[in-house]
Amino acid sequence: MADFDLSTAEIKWNSEGLVPAIVQDATSGEVLMLAWVNASALELTQAQGLATYWSRSREELWTKGATSGHLQRVVRISLDCDGDTLLYQVAQEGAACHTGERTCFTGRSDRP
Amino acid sequence: MADFDLSTAEIKWNSEGLVPAIVQDATSGEVLMLAWVNASALELTQAQGLATYWSRSREELWTKGATSGHLQRVVRISLDCDGDTLLYQVAQEGAACHTGERTCFTGRSDRP
Repeated sequence: MADFDLSTAEIKWNSEGLVPAIVQDATSGEVLMLAWVNASALELTQAQGLATYWSRSREELWTKGATSGHLQRVVRISLDCDGDTLLYQVAQEGAACHTGERTCFTGRSDRP
Repeated sequence: MADFDLSTAEIKWNSEGLVPAIVQDATSGEVLMLAWVNASALELTQAQGLATYWSRSREELWTKGATSGHLQRVVRISLDCDGDTLLYQVAQEGAACHTGERTCFTGRSDRP
């Protein structure tokens, strides 16, 4: 049973009632994706321990992996210094990216 | 000399001409902060190799560390699968957070 206690009142929601959540693999440190969260999504995430987001395109809540099985079990939730960005550290089952890649950030990468 | 070649045309800028940039320590994997980038900021970052952002509150470009000395030398820039989020992997000099903490995400952290 998850037992998070971050209050939605502590968060500076944007004009759409959302904040970005950076999603990081709790073990490897790899950044997996970024998604958007509203107060309901955060409350569900904290209650269930499974990362849940607000889909801006579909305009609905979605629990990551509910259909694909690629669940994200949330280990830690952190809020940044100015209260407008969340960091979810998760145990990722399978691929984080809908393309089947482990992370959404493999598509392009430039080096000096 | 930096030599990145990510085209600003590849990016799906939001209605304000911005995308979020997740900033990660290239060595430790620690997520340091999130900031916002417009096309000019990305071009400057790629030309100079120093992370440069758009300040939504001050409405101006800012090179991280220009006044504090806490520069971020960019090692890699990645774009996510749907082209609307950047990941900057950086060598951070000093503290990433204006509070003096190494990361902006130390303020609050909840565990199950």
